Amino acid sequence: MPRYEFRMQRVHVDAPLRPAEAVTASKDQANYLLNVLRLQAGDEVLLFNGRDGEWRATVETPTRKTCALVPAEQTRPQPAPSDFDYLFAPLKHARLDYMVQKAVEMGASRLSPVITRHTQAARVNTERMAANVVEAAEQCGILQLAEVREPRPLADVIAGWSREAPDRQLIFCDEGEASQNPLGPLEALKAEGARPLALLIGPEGGFSEEERALLRRQPFVTPIPLGPRVLRADTAAVAAFAVVQAVLGDWR
Amino acid sequence: MPRYEFRMQRVHVDAPLRPAEAVTASKDQANYLLNVLRLQAGDEVLLFNGRDGEWRATVETPTRKTCALVPAEQTRPQPAPSDFDYLFAPLKHARLDYMVQKAVEMGASRLSPVITRHTQAARVNTERMAANVVEAAEQCGILQLAEVREPRPLADVIAGWSREAPDRQLIFCDEGEASQNPLGPLEALKAEGARPLALLIGPEGGFSEEERALLRRQPFVTPIPLGPRVLRADTAAVAAFAVVQAVLGDWR
Repeated sequence: MPRYEFRMQRVHVDAPLRPAEAVTASKDQANYLLNVLRLQAGDEVLLFNGRDGEWRATVETPTRKTCALVPAEQTRPQPAPSDFDYLFAPLKHARLDYMVQKAVEMGASRLSPVITRHTQAARVNTERMAANVVEAAEQCGILQLAEVREPRPLADVIAGWSREAPDRQLIFCDEGEASQNPLGPLEALKAEGARPLALLIGPEGGFSEEERALLRRQPFVTPIPLGPRVLRADTAAVAAFAVVQAVLGDWR
Repeated sequence: MPRYEFRMQRVHVDAPLRPAEAVTASKDQANYLLNVLRLQAGDEVLLFNGRDGEWRATVETPTRKTCALVPAEQTRPQPAPSDFDYLFAPLKHARLDYMVQKAVEMGASRLSPVITRHTQAARVNTERMAANVVEAAEQCGILQLAEVREPRPLADVIAGWSREAPDRQLIFCDEGEASQNPLGPLEALKAEGARPLALLIGPEGGFSEEERALLRRQPFVTPIPLGPRVLRADTAAVAAFAVVQAVLGDWR
């Protein structure tokens, strides 16, 4: 398990991180660091930008509205990029925030909203999704920032799959699966050898029968069940990531 | 997978459920059914009480403040009771609500708050926990209502284990585990034969070193890791339930 300073505030910045090259905190960051956490000159935080690893930095020249954050030394190198697509029918408001944060914690490297027949959210705020990616990364010490994609209709994603991601396997949580245990199909997939992964979670109302049939006839799709109970979409997301990461992903 | 009416409102009641024996909706239930969902006389709902299975019932004699719910026929029998203890350091407010709902969805049959050294929530509102149990059961079609216990110190729970639950295995999510994959220790436990299970998730700040050492020296404790990333406590709960249910529990 990674070991790093648990209680030190982690801050995402866009600027490059190099020793002694000061980064200016944004207005919101400065407000949080100086007025909420009450940090003072010389106090330490951890910085990351998604490219240069994690750096211990000191707060310097605090004013009422901003401060400098000066990198001292790298505490963790940038990890090798992970490659795990998360496709999901967007939920409304707070549940979408939650689902995005959970997907980041569980190792998604790309977040792709897909519009399905029963999708409840009419519009998808990708800026808000990106803010939730940063928040989850800051809270959980994740150094790679998941990419947020624009929403696309499920049928388009499936039609373009062989062209856009010819090698990637799509694991699809199918509420209509007759069995209950995801480990069997995942172990079978593992026996076929390593390949890039994608996970698809449907909307709260489930996939339509046409969508299920479309998915199940694709050679790159593996349907898995998730036990005997109906799960809410955000619960299903974490549960599916857990079993997929444990059998096929970076929990091995 | 269970099949039942997805879109019909599910309502938990305390009264026994027998054909044609009317149950009176509580004030809050009547308000929700009549004023929010705008149900009318003759419309149908599903009733459950945690003992008598699930019943299709009709709304009758609605007034402005109440209505009768009259069971017509049983749609699902009461399932055999499950037996899965969930022990957890309580979180604050909304995150506790969320964790309780997720634990119910994932199959917990008993919710036992344990107070650890780094537990952040000073008091635990068990009435609110019980309300969240009902809400999750209503939303997810779960017919067994998880029991909510009073909080106890972790050391007391461990000291009383052999007397109170001599046969039960405690699976403990250990952030200090050197490995990353939970499947190995869970498969080893499975090879030892079926026994009742308990799952323990620590507080956001982790267990103290003393607590980890206490847990790890008990013969009834199995530590498991949950991958390479730090997970928030509510994420860890769903992820741990998923792998435990898949290897040892009712997802098999």
